[in-house]
Amino acid sequence: MVKIEQDILGKNDQYAAANRQRFAEQAIFTLNLVSSPGSGKTTVLTRTLQDLNGEIPLAVIEGDQQTSRDAERIRATGAPAIQINTGKGCHLDAHMVGHAVASLAPETGSVLFIENVGNLVCPAAFDLGEAHKVAILSVTEGEDKPIKYPDMFHAANLLLLNKIDLLPYLQFDVERCIDFARRVNPQIEVLQISASSGEGMQQWYQWIRSAREQCHA
Amino acid sequence: MVKIEQDILGKNDQYAAANRQRFAEQAIFTLNLVSSPGSGKTTVLTRTLQDLNGEIPLAVIEGDQQTSRDAERIRATGAPAIQINTGKGCHLDAHMVGHAVASLAPETGSVLFIENVGNLVCPAAFDLGEAHKVAILSVTEGEDKPIKYPDMFHAANLLLLNKIDLLPYLQFDVERCIDFARRVNPQIEVLQISASSGEGMQQWYQWIRSAREQCHA
Repeated sequence: MVKIEQDILGKNDQYAAANRQRFAEQAIFTLNLVSSPGSGKTTVLTRTLQDLNGEIPLAVIEGDQQTSRDAERIRATGAPAIQINTGKGCHLDAHMVGHAVASLAPETGSVLFIENVGNLVCPAAFDLGEAHKVAILSVTEGEDKPIKYPDMFHAANLLLLNKIDLLPYLQFDVERCIDFARRVNPQIEVLQISASSGEGMQQWYQWIRSAREQCHA
Repeated sequence: MVKIEQDILGKNDQYAAANRQRFAEQAIFTLNLVSSPGSGKTTVLTRTLQDLNGEIPLAVIEGDQQTSRDAERIRATGAPAIQINTGKGCHLDAHMVGHAVASLAPETGSVLFIENVGNLVCPAAFDLGEAHKVAILSVTEGEDKPIKYPDMFHAANLLLLNKIDLLPYLQFDVERCIDFARRVNPQIEVLQISASSGEGMQQWYQWIRSAREQCHA
C-alpha cells in the first residue's frame, strides 16, 4: 500500500510542477481553498470575486464529487469558472487541474482560485501547483478541528475562520482554536471573517494582494 | 486503479462479513455514524449515551485521524470506548473495526456506535459490518450537501439534521434539504434534532429502539 501511495503522489508531483511552471510563466497566482463540506468556501469565494472584480483578473476551478451548482454560483459573479466532478474521488489532483487550466485559459496576471472537494483529509497530500493552500474553518465546526485533522492545517499557509457572525449563538473559543492551529503549524496566519456579514473580508483581500505581489516579485 | 480499488473493497467486505456475523451472534446492534467534520457527531453521541445509559448496554468505537479527544469525551459518559487513529487515512475499514471490537468486547445485546472519521466521501464505500449508516448533517452546512456528496446520503438509512436550534440565525431551507436527500435516496428517513437543546432527541432514541428490535427479530 505504501508503494502505491508513493507512486500516485510522485506522479501527482510531476503534474503539479508542470502546473506551477505554467502559473509562473503567465504570472497566475493560484490559491487552493480547502475545508470541510459546508464551511462556506463557495460563499467566501463568490463574495471575493464580486469585491475584487475589476481590480484583478479572476478565474475559478471548482471541484465537487457531483453537480455543477458551485460553478453556476461562481459564473453568476461574472468570473470564468470550470467545474471538475471527481465522482467517487475525495480530492482534486494536479492532472485534473492541468486539464482544467488548459480549458479555462486564465488571462496573464490572474488570481486563480481552486475550490477543492469539501474534505479535511484527502486534499492535504495533493499539491496542485498552487502558491498556497488556504484552509477555511467555520466556527460552527468546533475549535478542535486543527488537531483532529492536522495534515490539512499543517499544509495551509492561511486559516480563514469563517461565520464569525454566528459566534454569539455558539460555544466556540476563538483563541483556543488558533492555539490548536499553531500547535500543528506555528507559521499559519489566521484571519477571522464572515463572508455573510462582510466582517474581516478586507483583511483577506489585503492578504491576497500582498501574497500575490510576493509571489511574482 | 479500478482493479486496486476492487481488491481493497473486496477484502474489506470479507472483514465486514466477519464483523456482521459476530454482531449477529452476540445481538450487538451497530450504527456507523458518518458526517463532515464539525456536524456535531460527538455531541449527538455523548447526549445519546447519557440518555440511554441504564436502559441498553452501550459501547463506542471512535475514529479520528489524530487525537483521542473524542474517546475521552465518550468515556466521561461512562460508556466503554476505544479510539482508532487512522493517521493519513480518511475512513475506518472493517479490519480496524474487527480489532477494535475484539479489544472492546461489547456485552451481548449492546448498541455499538461507530463514529467514523469526519468525511462525506471516503466512509461511504466501506462497509464495517454495521446494521445501518446514520448520516449527520448540520444545518450550518447548507442544504445542497446531499446532492454534492450523493454516495454518502445514498448509503445511509437515516439522516439526522442537527443543530436546528441555529435555524433562526441561518438561511437554510429544511424542506429543500430533505428533498435533495430523497433525490439521491428515496427511502432515507429524516429526523430534525439539536443535540445541544435536546429537541428531537426522543424521536432519535425511538428510532434506535425500533431498528434494534427489527434487527434482532
